[in-house]
Amino acid sequence: MKNKKVNINNKFRNFTDLWSPKVIAEMNNYQFKLAKVKGSFIWHSHDETDEVFIVMDGTLDIHLRDKKIHLQKGEMYVVPQGVEHKPEAEKECKIMLIEQKGTVNTGDLSNNLTSPNDIYI
Amino acid sequence: MKNKKVNINNKFRNFTDLWSPKVIAEMNNYQFKLAKVKGSFIWHSHDETDEVFIVMDGTLDIHLRDKKIHLQKGEMYVVPQGVEHKPEAEKECKIMLIEQKGTVNTGDLSNNLTSPNDIYI
Repeated sequence: MKNKKVNINNKFRNFTDLWSPKVIAEMNNYQFKLAKVKGSFIWHSHDETDEVFIVMDGTLDIHLRDKKIHLQKGEMYVVPQGVEHKPEAEKECKIMLIEQKGTVNTGDLSNNLTSPNDIYI
Repeated sequence: MKNKKVNINNKFRNFTDLWSPKVIAEMNNYQFKLAKVKGSFIWHSHDETDEVFIVMDGTLDIHLRDKKIHLQKGEMYVVPQGVEHKPEAEKECKIMLIEQKGTVNTGDLSNNLTSPNDIYI
């Protein structure tokens, strides 16, 4: 995985499943992940790390308890550690996530939306 | 800086100087930085952290001692901790860097190319 350049858009061709982040690069103990999302995710938080969302294509809403962040292509947002959030996309949206290795997509919850970690593409 | 969305392309309008990374976001003890680069930088390394390069516009060569990584828009590369590298761009190129807070652009060297850290835009 290291010592290779990564074409971000090409990596999106390697999967079709929604809400299931795939690792494309690692930096120290952090991972860069791609995900395709559509519809509503669940409310969750990450008690151990901030989480960065970058919209690569489409639009994404990140609901927080007190406001909604509307992101378009080329926009990013850092969800602070411990802050509850619920991502939502009306149409399919391509995002890049940056977060600590071991971060679970459903945060402090475990259910049928929980994805396995460390799926490298 | 936190709790605000960031439009990456718009942030590039806030500066013109070359080889002088500006901070646009923070995640834990890491920073997302933008830089405009043109010409050759110097050989250096970062002994304490991997360093991520993402090309936002233009093309960038990252020279390593044993090869050259040629990056186009939308491509990324992780320079491993301690590995000597020399970025170079024939034409002006826009890049995003992700690295630990406190990382100096000239790494283990200090000279007239050394930029101040923590310049937020």
